Parts: sequence; structure tokens; C-alpha cells
Amino acid sequence: MSTHRIFSDPQLSANAARLLREGLSPHEIIVPQNRPASVLAKPEPDPAFPLADIAFGQPDLESIARSASLRWVQISSAGFTRYDTPEFRALAAERGLIVTNSSSVYAAACAEHVFAFMLAQSRQLPAGLRSHAANGSPEWFHLRDHSVSLRGQHVVILGFGGIATRLVALLAPFDMKITAMRRQPRGDEGFPTVTPENLAASLATADHVINILPDNAASRNFIDAARLAQMKPGAVFHNIGRGTTVDQDALLGALRSGHLAAAWLDVTEPEPLPAGHPLRHDPNCFITPHTAGGHANESETLVRHFLENFNRYLAGSPLLDRIV
Amino acid sequence: MSTHRIFSDPQLSANAARLLREGLSPHEIIVPQNRPASVLAKPEPDPAFPLADIAFGQPDLESIARSASLRWVQISSAGFTRYDTPEFRALAAERGLIVTNSSSVYAAACAEHVFAFMLAQSRQLPAGLRSHAANGSPEWFHLRDHSVSLRGQHVVILGFGGIATRLVALLAPFDMKITAMRRQPRGDEGFPTVTPENLAASLATADHVINILPDNAASRNFIDAARLAQMKPGAVFHNIGRGTTVDQDALLGALRSGHLAAAWLDVTEPEPLPAGHPLRHDPNCFITPHTAGGHANESETLVRHFLENFNRYLAGSPLLDRIV
Repeated sequence: MSTHRIFSDPQLSANAARLLREGLSPHEIIVPQNRPASVLAKPEPDPAFPLADIAFGQPDLESIARSASLRWVQISSAGFTRYDTPEFRALAAERGLIVTNSSSVYAAACAEHVFAFMLAQSRQLPAGLRSHAANGSPEWFHLRDHSVSLRGQHVVILGFGGIATRLVALLAPFDMKITAMRRQPRGDEGFPTVTPENLAASLATADHVINILPDNAASRNFIDAARLAQMKPGAVFHNIGRGTTVDQDALLGALRSGHLAAAWLDVTEPEPLPAGHPLRHDPNCFITPHTAGGHANESETLVRHFLENFNRYLAGSPLLDRIV
Repeated sequence: MSTHRIFSDPQLSANAARLLREGLSPHEIIVPQNRPASVLAKPEPDPAFPLADIAFGQPDLESIARSASLRWVQISSAGFTRYDTPEFRALAAERGLIVTNSSSVYAAACAEHVFAFMLAQSRQLPAGLRSHAANGSPEWFHLRDHSVSLRGQHVVILGFGGIATRLVALLAPFDMKITAMRRQPRGDEGFPTVTPENLAASLATADHVINILPDNAASRNFIDAARLAQMKPGAVFHNIGRGTTVDQDALLGALRSGHLAAAWLDVTEPEPLPAGHPLRHDPNCFITPHTAGGHANESETLVRHFLENFNRYLAGSPLLDRIV
């Protein structure tokens, strides 16, 4: 068995680092000299990188392009914007480079996060948690009247993948009408799927629109003034994809006019949104700081997912979450 | 067919009032002269009450006791504390009086409300919605690390009825361990049931404790210092039953010591809790103002449920939500 050299730059808990060492032994782990502070920060080339045949984390494009030995990259995030270019795909194809991501690691948490958004909105939690209304008061009746059941409502999910699949499973007891948008529907989704070209009719009846789109050339400002106008008055918009997929000025307009009842955003452009940004001050805009995929012992889940793929790689089996 | 006279005191929307008139026609509706402001307020005797053979709403005990014609009372709430006494049960038995409540009307909304509590807590929504944390910052990692999946967690439900049944259905996709407490388990609940006497072992492993207990002599201060101490460190306590079932001083102590991670309360004693009450200012105590059962078009649901029972009453069929 040949020895693999794995470049690994994710910031790991002590337990996760031990799991990684034990799981990869006797193969060699190359730890970077300059660890990126965030998966969204642009990584710098690392002098130790050229020795690796496998990279786990957020390797920089220049190092990948220069490496003569690299065979497989597993990105430690679900998003992979910086690798999602025609140039990178061409390079990977030319080199026979395998590229996987970690979307499975975050899918369940992301689905629960946006589900929490949906229920918090439908049960009027932000207003309710602030209220001291007395039983029988006008404010009390208002809160109760504006609480609605998700049961039988229509949800449109933009972007079909692991998160959408898990979300649909969580929504099952609510007997919701579910429509997913997918660029290339395959017919095996288990519920109606539309393409971006025929999305408007679905937006017109959706109570909740869930945006899970990644950031790429096709998705930038996908939710623009026109698509917001296509949404049903009183609809609720959620974003757990990427902030760049939304025209935030148009979103603000749709909230201010009352066309949308609320927006729940885990992602914005930029992140964090400045304290003075008007979306921060709109009473119907609710923002969490890109924590949808977060979960206890996250770096252990991340390492386990990588080790699962490492063992598949050694065995020559198909890898999970392959993106290139 | 004899003509029934139905005393009806719930505050209804125009639509619901029309539904009631149409549904009861040609029977006679008696509208009270003094409508109670809240279902929790003590109602006053109404001079028109003695004419009724059916009462829908919150009729006062004195009027019921004095009435020679009353045969059936449908209470317009799920709670029925003022009717839940040995004296009232004896009176009802002596007169052959049927008593039903409206618990089915509120069960789905209550289940969704406490489910929203559970998800908001597990996804750290209160802290997340306040946070402007940057990706990769210590606060950001803290938020992500403290987000946990409900999947596989243990939930203990105190009180088994329509709300618990619906909640269990909503939780199904999370593969949670579920234990319900019921005074007299029947074995047909579909999951493990314990009595109050052997609750301690379940409290010791529960991640979420959901209190749905009504207010009565046996439930007052059921959640006291001893039962709070039996709960697992880091557990989350929810109350959508009645405020009187909790020793609020003991609850405050369990929050302040850090023994409980959080408390989510839709009911308190009194309601609303005064602005200066220490539970209002505990950073891990979250309070909604008794809105768990509220839902859009609530009074229409209430009337439909009464009309369903009215038709069953006319046909001599068993009534829904019979409590006496």
C-alpha cells in the first residue's frame, strides 16, 4: 500500500484532530503553516502543499493548479464558489482531479435551521416573545390571528440537494404542498419540480420560499425585484444559500411595501451585514450570522465524513458529495 | 324535531358568527348581555341563561347549577379548571349533564407552537438573531457549537392528550426517544408511558421536557424544585399547559444556577407576568403571552367543532372532547 500525504487545513477540535490522525494512520498528515481564519476567507498558498496527493479543507486554487501530485480535493464546506468556475473544471478534467465537498455534513443542520425559521414565523415568535399582552387584549388577538399552521401551506424550495431532501422529510407531517426548483429536473425527486424558466407560477402561490442556491454566475441576484414581485402577497422568504443570490435592495423594498410578510436570512452580502444596513432595522427581517449548518461537534462530523470518503478512495469506490 | 335554545358567549368573527347561525338554524341562539373579556375571566350570571338547554362558551357555575333546562355544555377552551371540581362533577352526574371542551380546536396549534420553541432553542435562534458575529469569530463558533439537532434526543411529555398526540406526529422525522407521562397509562399510546410516580428516571435523561398539564388540584406546582433537580443538567423546559403547574421561584433558581439551559413558557402565573418579574429578565427564559393555541380564523374552527358536536348531539352519537 502506498503512503498518502493528506494536506488538512480545517480548524478542528482536539477530538476531531485525534479522529483524523487515527483514521488516516499510517498515512501522513500535512498541517498548513498558515491556517485560514474562515472557510470564506481567501486562502494563501502553503509551502507544504506540493507534497500532498490529497487535500482536505480550503486549498487555494493556485496551489492546486501548480501541484503535480494532487489527485483528490475534499472541500470542508458545502459552498464551493471559488472552485465553481469553467477554468477550475477544465483543470480538474485535464488532471483527472476528483473534487468532493462536505455538503452532507451540514445538510441536516441547515434543514433544521430553516425549519426553525418557518415555525418561528408561523407561530409569530419574534412578536410573541416581545409581547406582554394580556389575555383578551387587541394585541393578544392580533398575535393569535396571525399565527398560522404550516399544515397544507405551499413551500417552494430553490435548489435541490441534500438540504432540500432533508427539509422535505421534516415537513412530511404537515402535508404541505412542496415544489422544488432544479435546473435539470430528473423526475426522481418525489414531488413536483420546476425549472427557473417556469418558476413564476409556483412563486405566485407559495406561502414560504426557501432559497438554498449556491453562489455562482447563474445564481447571482436570482431573487431580484421581478421574482419578488411574482411572489404571493404575504409570502415569507428564507435564505440559507448564499447572500449574493439576492438583490438585497429589492428585498428591502418588498419588505417595506408589505408585499412580503417577512424575510429570514442566514446569509447576506456581505457577512456580517453592517450594523447600519437597513435590512438590520426592518421589523420583518430576521438575520442569523451564517450559522445554519452549525452543530455540536461539527468538526468531528466533518472528519468522519472525510474519513468515509478516504476509505472509499482507498477502495476505489464512488465518493460521497462529488462535485467535479 | 324540538327546538333547541343555545346560549353562546364566545367572541366570534363575523364569518364565525354567520357559520354558527347557519349551522344551528332553525334552532335559537341566545346571545349574552354581558360578554366575558377573556376565557380566563370569571363570567357573570346572565339573565337569559335559564332559557337555554345547550351552552357554548364559558358559562358560569352558578347559572349552570340553577338551570333546570341545561343538558349539554361545550366549553370554548381547552382548559376547564373552573369546571374541574368534585362538586361540579357531582352536579353534572346528578343532572345527567354532558360536558365537552374544545381541546381539538387548539391541539394542532399548541403542538406547532411548542415544536417552534424546541427548534428555536436547538438552533439557538434568540442568540443568533441578536448576533452580528463574523464568520470564524469565537462568538460564531460558540453559536454553531451550541446548535444541536433534535435528532435522536429524548423528549418527555407531561400530559397525554390531543396536543401530545399531534406533537409526537410532528417529531416523527427526528427519530427522537419519546416518553409521555400519563396518570393512567392505557398501553395504546404507541410509545413508552410513565406515571408521575416513576417519572424521575425519564427526567434524568430528557433533553426537552414539555409540560402540557392542565390546572387542577393534582397538578399545582407539579414542576417543583425536586422535579427540576431530577432533570438532566442542560435540559430545556417548556410549558404550554398552565402556569400554576410550575413553582416559578424554583424554575428561576434552576435557570440561574445553569442547571436548565433554558425555559420556554407560553403560560405563567399570573398572566401576563409583571414586567418586573425576574423570569422576564432571565436571559434563558423565553415567554409568549398564552398564544400557543392561537391560529388564523380561530373562531371559525371553534364554531365548526361545536357544530360537529351539535350534529352528533342531535343524532345521539358520542360527542368529541367529552370531559364529564
